[in-house]
Amino acid sequence: MAGRKVLIVYAHQEPRSFNGSLKRIAVEELSKQGCSVTVSDLYAMQFEPRATRNDVVGCLDNSEEFNYGVETWEAYKRGGLSNDVIEEQKKVQEADLLIFQNKLAMFSFTTGGSEEMYAKGSINGDIRYLLWPMQHGIMHFCGVKVLAPHICFAPEYVSEEKRKEMLNAWAQRLKTLWKEEPINCSPEWYFQ
Amino acid sequence: MAGRKVLIVYAHQEPRSFNGSLKRIAVEELSKQGCSVTVSDLYAMQFEPRATRNDVVGCLDNSEEFNYGVETWEAYKRGGLSNDVIEEQKKVQEADLLIFQNKLAMFSFTTGGSEEMYAKGSINGDIRYLLWPMQHGIMHFCGVKVLAPHICFAPEYVSEEKRKEMLNAWAQRLKTLWKEEPINCSPEWYFQ
Repeated sequence: MAGRKVLIVYAHQEPRSFNGSLKRIAVEELSKQGCSVTVSDLYAMQFEPRATRNDVVGCLDNSEEFNYGVETWEAYKRGGLSNDVIEEQKKVQEADLLIFQNKLAMFSFTTGGSEEMYAKGSINGDIRYLLWPMQHGIMHFCGVKVLAPHICFAPEYVSEEKRKEMLNAWAQRLKTLWKEEPINCSPEWYFQ
Repeated sequence: MAGRKVLIVYAHQEPRSFNGSLKRIAVEELSKQGCSVTVSDLYAMQFEPRATRNDVVGCLDNSEEFNYGVETWEAYKRGGLSNDVIEEQKKVQEADLLIFQNKLAMFSFTTGGSEEMYAKGSINGDIRYLLWPMQHGIMHFCGVKVLAPHICFAPEYVSEEKRKEMLNAWAQRLKTLWKEEPINCSPEWYFQ
């Protein structure tokens, strides 16, 4: 929908990968809709995933015994978090401010294993079990509404034809994304 | 038990933290039992958590399009993984070779929230939901038997007295660790 700000947090090493194609399609389709799309390309940015003292600029509250949670909270209040963290927070915040409803989030990812390997009772268990910590523990916990995940199963092991179908399905879904209802992000959705 | 090799993978920034104490107690108690204990102190080692091309030494199999899974598998076969990865693999392997049964693993960690916050139906859901990807998806999947997790709930928010009790309980548990039966690492344990 025109005017909406979309942030895509993208984590893959190779732009020419299937994941790269999924990202490109999302940027194209959403831009076409008039959204302003920002991509945080974590690998390209060499985004630092470790939670260390470097996330705090300047003096620590207690330099005798480093407590990450306390120090980053204090730093946050005085604007003393490191630039890379502040930048990402800003992107998240802006995407939030511009849509007049609760923030939406969607996990879009590919798997190594086939769909059957992520069914209840199979080797990996229901794929929803794996989504619980992120969708419910992080997003829902922070008040973010969650759209149904978009999962491409095992693109490495299917035909070129099937891969094209997958990209197509993704592009199709994006066209009507804004009309989707969020999932009911309760334990039943994951474990019923 | 004397002669067993134990690997502790430890991830906390501050040696003087409660987590630091838990680790120290484990090293002391297990060494006292005659085990040879190795600690991988990930923060101190500045262990690289990102999965990048740097994990592969020398030429890539396909330098046009980087595929992490393929490249690290090829590198593994020719002994071309980076040193930090090889070192850790060696530790894991050695710990495995010295005990004449399947490898054991135990997740020992602290939480920010209280025990009630990790009960079924509460804000975070059953803590076992969060253990599924690691205990079942990684350990069980690799054929490793899993001991019941050791969880210290919210050490930051309890009394000094209670914290001492927690450390004590940990030390006590370690004394008879080798007699414990692994959990039945099936979906029922997590989601029944």
